Amino acid sequence: MELNVVWWSPARDGRPAAVGYVDQRALPRDVRELLATDVDAVVNAIATLAVRGAPAIGVFGAYGVALARELAADDDAFAASAARIRAARPTAVNLGWAVDRVLAAGPQGYLEEARAIHAEQREVDRAIGEHGAELLPQAGAVLTHCNTGPLATAGYGTALGAIIAAHEAGKRLHVYVDETRPLLQGARLTIFELALAGVPATLIADSAAAATMRDKAIAAVIVGADRIATNGDTANKIGTYGLALAAAHHGIPFYVAAPRSTIDFDLRDGGGIHIEERAAHEVTAFENVSVYNPAFDVTPGRLISAIVTEYGVARPPYHESIPDLATRPSFGLTLR
Amino acid sequence: MELNVVWWSPARDGRPAAVGYVDQRALPRDVRELLATDVDAVVNAIATLAVRGAPAIGVFGAYGVALARELAADDDAFAASAARIRAARPTAVNLGWAVDRVLAAGPQGYLEEARAIHAEQREVDRAIGEHGAELLPQAGAVLTHCNTGPLATAGYGTALGAIIAAHEAGKRLHVYVDETRPLLQGARLTIFELALAGVPATLIADSAAAATMRDKAIAAVIVGADRIATNGDTANKIGTYGLALAAAHHGIPFYVAAPRSTIDFDLRDGGGIHIEERAAHEVTAFENVSVYNPAFDVTPGRLISAIVTEYGVARPPYHESIPDLATRPSFGLTLR
Repeated sequence: MELNVVWWSPARDGRPAAVGYVDQRALPRDVRELLATDVDAVVNAIATLAVRGAPAIGVFGAYGVALARELAADDDAFAASAARIRAARPTAVNLGWAVDRVLAAGPQGYLEEARAIHAEQREVDRAIGEHGAELLPQAGAVLTHCNTGPLATAGYGTALGAIIAAHEAGKRLHVYVDETRPLLQGARLTIFELALAGVPATLIADSAAAATMRDKAIAAVIVGADRIATNGDTANKIGTYGLALAAAHHGIPFYVAAPRSTIDFDLRDGGGIHIEERAAHEVTAFENVSVYNPAFDVTPGRLISAIVTEYGVARPPYHESIPDLATRPSFGLTLR
Repeated sequence: MELNVVWWSPARDGRPAAVGYVDQRALPRDVRELLATDVDAVVNAIATLAVRGAPAIGVFGAYGVALARELAADDDAFAASAARIRAARPTAVNLGWAVDRVLAAGPQGYLEEARAIHAEQREVDRAIGEHGAELLPQAGAVLTHCNTGPLATAGYGTALGAIIAAHEAGKRLHVYVDETRPLLQGARLTIFELALAGVPATLIADSAAAATMRDKAIAAVIVGADRIATNGDTANKIGTYGLALAAAHHGIPFYVAAPRSTIDFDLRDGGGIHIEERAAHEVTAFENVSVYNPAFDVTPGRLISAIVTEYGVARPPYHESIPDLATRPSFGLTLR
């Protein structure tokens, strides 16, 4: 079974066109496929996290612009709709990028451009997966954090894509998955995606990761990234830094997998990365409690064994290998 | 406000004797003080975790035996009741010890002996707290895990007791408290106890601990213990090992505080400690998911800066300092 994350639903049998999506809030209990039939529904799906994961939001927003064109009475109404979609989650860099790219294609090309963005996402993910799979052991236990699978990218995933690609290539992996408090993306989404892909997996509490590395002979840790500096410093879901420290202590390779677009080539180190703090209620249900709830942390590049992108694998020293990734014209050439 | 955890409620105004307790399952939402008026209620309170924390269970069980004596029709019925209390939670070492000690006191001395056990627990905790408080900084941020306060001991607490004692001695501490998945003892109980004690505290997700150590200038980490080997290897709530690794990386002192009875003087290292695995449903609410849920992990003694007991503070090399603790006849003498 392959999961449809977001898709274009063409007009058919008198039913109007729409953008389809699986409601990630209902997972894993229900696989609820819904259709956004107007701009309100597109904006709402993004704002309420029914569609989440920066690349997946980008693809969804791109289709949303194509839908908005079909529904708009005139150019002004369309422009207003596109602007609303673009602002549905202002922190998702991919959303603004995808909307702008669709708009630049011109009225006749909106849907085609959205489909191209989606197709390219699959290509990027496939390349990350193939590069990443090579780094994983032929057999053994690996550990991951948060959700970096198809649900997050509307493609094949990044770190989780590498694990699934390795499994499909015949590597016999067992995946330990952190719950990933406070929002439990590991428990809700990653476990679900690994089950769909037929990859053996075991859920652990985040705090069990260090003991699991030692007591369950973890052979590699692989995670995604939100932003990477040119020295390898990597912002990712809160908890990544602690995992990297424990992996380093146990001599376990620690890999980051992400699209090249995640690298900020203007950022020399992680000191410049703003740490987003999220709402206290995510952590606790009790009132009047002071909460520190950073959404991510910064892992120093020196703790990272390799950074996997669609353009290949960067290894230390990153201040040389990461800028080199920027010069590669095509990941297809390096791959096949 | 001081919290009553367990207490003897004498017969009065025609109301029979009972053992009182605060229902820890209802905390922190409700401070629900209940009376166990028969042996069934005593056993049930222990089995359902309404009373939890090994020392607190011991004190509660001791009072329970005194209550059973008052209610029993004959010696046989009393012996059966005492055996049921003793078996209410077979893994709690203190429970069997406390029941046996009360029984050894003889029929006229049951209640007096239960009161002595309770009073001694307070003395032990007070001594741990005073020794531990000296190790904490005059001002700054400290981090703790799980619940080691009055609720866990029916006294003043161990690691949390040291923090509260330091606060009462005028040290200006801010405590970062791990949620402590899967059962959230930090979020539910430790935060509550620190609020009662007036100690400033902030709740974090377990996975935020490493970043918090770095970004919030944590000056010390202090935790409790379930079992300690003579080389300092310490079994404690799952997550302790990862905290110790992160603390070591950042050069932050890592302290363990526990009664001397926690030290297994026959155990040379942590390799011999059985790791209890608990139910999958604690970690996840979703069905058919493989879960690894160890209740605790073992932290090597080499990662522990000092071990605080009521008999004083042991420092490396533990294979010398820990056996030395066993020879001290009285912690009162070393304290005052």
